[in-house]
Amino acid sequence: MWQLYQFPLCPFSRKVRLLMSEKGIAYDLIRENPWEQRDEFQNLNPALRTPVIHNPERQITIVDSRAICEYFEETVDKAPMINGTATNRAEIRRLIALFDENFFADVTHPLLEERMKKRLVYRQSPDSRILREAMRMANLHLDYIDYLIDHRPWLAGATMSLADLAAAAQISVADYLGGIDWSQHEQARGWYSVFKSRPSFRPLLSERMDVIHPPTHYADVNA
Amino acid sequence: MWQLYQFPLCPFSRKVRLLMSEKGIAYDLIRENPWEQRDEFQNLNPALRTPVIHNPERQITIVDSRAICEYFEETVDKAPMINGTATNRAEIRRLIALFDENFFADVTHPLLEERMKKRLVYRQSPDSRILREAMRMANLHLDYIDYLIDHRPWLAGATMSLADLAAAAQISVADYLGGIDWSQHEQARGWYSVFKSRPSFRPLLSERMDVIHPPTHYADVNA
Repeated sequence: MWQLYQFPLCPFSRKVRLLMSEKGIAYDLIRENPWEQRDEFQNLNPALRTPVIHNPERQITIVDSRAICEYFEETVDKAPMINGTATNRAEIRRLIALFDENFFADVTHPLLEERMKKRLVYRQSPDSRILREAMRMANLHLDYIDYLIDHRPWLAGATMSLADLAAAAQISVADYLGGIDWSQHEQARGWYSVFKSRPSFRPLLSERMDVIHPPTHYADVNA
Repeated sequence: MWQLYQFPLCPFSRKVRLLMSEKGIAYDLIRENPWEQRDEFQNLNPALRTPVIHNPERQITIVDSRAICEYFEETVDKAPMINGTATNRAEIRRLIALFDENFFADVTHPLLEERMKKRLVYRQSPDSRILREAMRMANLHLDYIDYLIDHRPWLAGATMSLADLAAAAQISVADYLGGIDWSQHEQARGWYSVFKSRPSFRPLLSERMDVIHPPTHYADVNA
């Protein structure tokens, strides 16, 4: 059985969990707060980042969310998520990078720093200037999703792909932390509400981080 | 013919150039300073990052260095660089992420900010505290390369892979900017000197960024 080292608001772990669930791969969750820098975790991943997946019976450890997703894509045929022609696959990977890197740096990471780590680790108040800027950037990224969904059924083309899972994973964490204003984004909201009702997504939406609570619309599939 | 949008000290463009040369794929270089935010470039890549490759005859544009590398790996058989079993491939991708993300954030990015952008764009002096910290982190990353090369001929295993190209690309930019002290890293230096003499690497080492000059050992294959 796979063990997934993660914490509930890690967007990269969420992407891996969505992929594993869509593919029907069973896993146990192991709670890991990477900022605590546990020795046992550093032995698994010198870069000290979640997610890490580990299979004790088969003695396999895989580090880095994109390496993990490519691994399951290569080894599990069910529900292909990086599919189509080489050009289609490049478009899927472009969007994965856009959400894993740009959306994370612009939106998810500052929200996690200000609303999670300052509360749990540093015992400080959030910086409202940084929060405003993260929400402004979230708005620009949602504009781009609106644009994509105006032209395609799913973010990277005709079928659901890992690009949709990567985007939904980042957005769900930003939404938990109160960083998303859905009011001007009808297309993005429609696309995201389809996700919220998927069986792969429901377990994520029901989990809570200690002491940090999401807004009321967060887990509501009709919101 | 492929066109590669890049600037000489972009480590991600260097990784793509190394891969294309190893695979024997011809390309033209197009100089792009992404911080100038040219409209034509933003149309190619809304994320405004290099590298982008574009093939006007075939009307293909590919964005993001990992998407580009996976694309050429899938479409060009020569010189496979993400090869072996699924577990081997995961190890290659783990190390690509380590250098693209951690080494870049810890070393290459601060060096580029302090020694390139402050000079070319902001007209400021570099912050010596940030430079010292980047060099301290470079030292830790080189320790890890020493450790890997003690156990394996190449970073990810028995054969040269995209992990080696990704690492050499980052290190070459850091070395250009004076951020690498090779004195305590015999294994890493031996591994890197093999690269410096490869035909794919020679053109990179001969290029110069305007007004910013590398240390004398930078392009010396015997250093």
